[in-house]
Amino acid sequence: MPLWGAIEAGGSKFVCAVGSGPEDLQEVRFATTTPQETLQRALDFFRPHHARQPLDAVGIGSFGPIDLDPSSPTFGFITNTPKQSWAHTDIGGVIRSALDVPIGFDTDVNAAALGEHRWGAARGLDTFIYLTVGTGIGGGGMVGGRLLHGMLHPEMGHIPIPHDRDRDPYQGFCPYHGDCFEGLAAGPALQGRWGEPAANLAPDHPAWHLEAHYLALALAGFICTLSPQRIVMGGGVMQQTHLLPLVHEQVREELNGYVQTAEILEEIERYIVLPELEARSGILGALALAQQAA
Amino acid sequence: MPLWGAIEAGGSKFVCAVGSGPEDLQEVRFATTTPQETLQRALDFFRPHHARQPLDAVGIGSFGPIDLDPSSPTFGFITNTPKQSWAHTDIGGVIRSALDVPIGFDTDVNAAALGEHRWGAARGLDTFIYLTVGTGIGGGGMVGGRLLHGMLHPEMGHIPIPHDRDRDPYQGFCPYHGDCFEGLAAGPALQGRWGEPAANLAPDHPAWHLEAHYLALALAGFICTLSPQRIVMGGGVMQQTHLLPLVHEQVREELNGYVQTAEILEEIERYIVLPELEARSGILGALALAQQAA
Repeated sequence: MPLWGAIEAGGSKFVCAVGSGPEDLQEVRFATTTPQETLQRALDFFRPHHARQPLDAVGIGSFGPIDLDPSSPTFGFITNTPKQSWAHTDIGGVIRSALDVPIGFDTDVNAAALGEHRWGAARGLDTFIYLTVGTGIGGGGMVGGRLLHGMLHPEMGHIPIPHDRDRDPYQGFCPYHGDCFEGLAAGPALQGRWGEPAANLAPDHPAWHLEAHYLALALAGFICTLSPQRIVMGGGVMQQTHLLPLVHEQVREELNGYVQTAEILEEIERYIVLPELEARSGILGALALAQQAA
Repeated sequence: MPLWGAIEAGGSKFVCAVGSGPEDLQEVRFATTTPQETLQRALDFFRPHHARQPLDAVGIGSFGPIDLDPSSPTFGFITNTPKQSWAHTDIGGVIRSALDVPIGFDTDVNAAALGEHRWGAARGLDTFIYLTVGTGIGGGGMVGGRLLHGMLHPEMGHIPIPHDRDRDPYQGFCPYHGDCFEGLAAGPALQGRWGEPAANLAPDHPAWHLEAHYLALALAGFICTLSPQRIVMGGGVMQQTHLLPLVHEQVREELNGYVQTAEILEEIERYIVLPELEARSGILGALALAQQAA
């Protein structure tokens, strides 16, 4: 039975796992500190497993931006991240050379998309989006069965969306764009606009209707751009379970009958959904990246 | 030598062509009237060619929305188009059964994208967008070498974009969304906002800076969503050649250093480009659809 290693490399925490599949994963998680210390802890976790039975490959789903171009000299690097100490870190190369195994490498959100495709809410689809709404907003997914790559990789949190400053004078917190999608709708925007963390805002607080409005505008844009067969929405903000029905309603209002499909008009509850793997999309996706790399 | 048929089915004109490739195409073009009359004219063009040497396949790039799902009973149909007399027209089936040949069928913009991929500005790329800005706005393209399909097909003209009503009180002309991208930036919006057709507005008219602003907002959204390796911009509005440099400048401003690639920071003139096939992207793309279908 092959044995896989998986790393979910987040800006605030790392999850590392070893197993042959979702059923027998052994996991460890720790805070993301310096690259040297953090990657050392990852290797300290993998080495004893690797000594007992060699890992066949390690998959890494990483925060970014990252270099995904296999022909690039900096393939496997985190590149110009605002998280300064991690800029230009060769995360793929460090793991590969320390363990001498093939490496699968992609964005954290493409990894989560792959996890949901393999074992979760996107099984059987070939064109879909996985979006996470938490301290930031990121998106990945597949088109025609291929993970979304290209010039670089998607940065779906940074699309421009309409912002009516009379209705919502909050300026947005994105250091690059101010009131882009992430700037208006990620967790820190809720905190900045209402003075309290999202988790403290009651389900009938007007914050949620406005949040659903911004999510619906972005989703309408993604639907018109990519025509996904489903949208899977993860991340901490989506764990406020009263939010999703508001999103369903407002996406339908935004599209206003233009996209005449059963998915939008009749079954939107099955079209825009939470991850089936819940918080495990990312680490299981990293495991699937390892399988692809082997 | 195989012989291909091609149809560029537009809302106002049809182009039909026969040939073995781009060099020897024989074309005819006529106004789009009723479905019966228009498809009859197409068949009248193909039949004498087909009698001399049987066509190996016919490719159709069609206005839409259309049904692209080969497993659907209405595959090959134009579906709920606002152009009422064409709603629910089985354009693919009529051509297939009259000529008894395989049919390639896709949107007009995916066909144009395929033409540019095969013979034009997108050669060698696997992830790119073809956008047309004319009486409407539409977009197609590829991701990972596959034409963009999914739930339906992209409707890139209908993404929501920011609209500052103090700067631009024009309300937009889209009957579904008012001030979506198409509603603010297609040819009729220029006419509606300034009282003159785009072609009459001098290169230093403020119309162009505003037009470039809307195009840049939409392009920034597409770049963050799909990370295309190139964007090819066709259609009548883009024939105002002073417009493209304004778009280059404003896309860079919108992204504001967030997407750190050579394409954006150093070579944006080679990244956002006009079609190399000029007005022939669509009909040559339809020919490429025929080749794929055979």
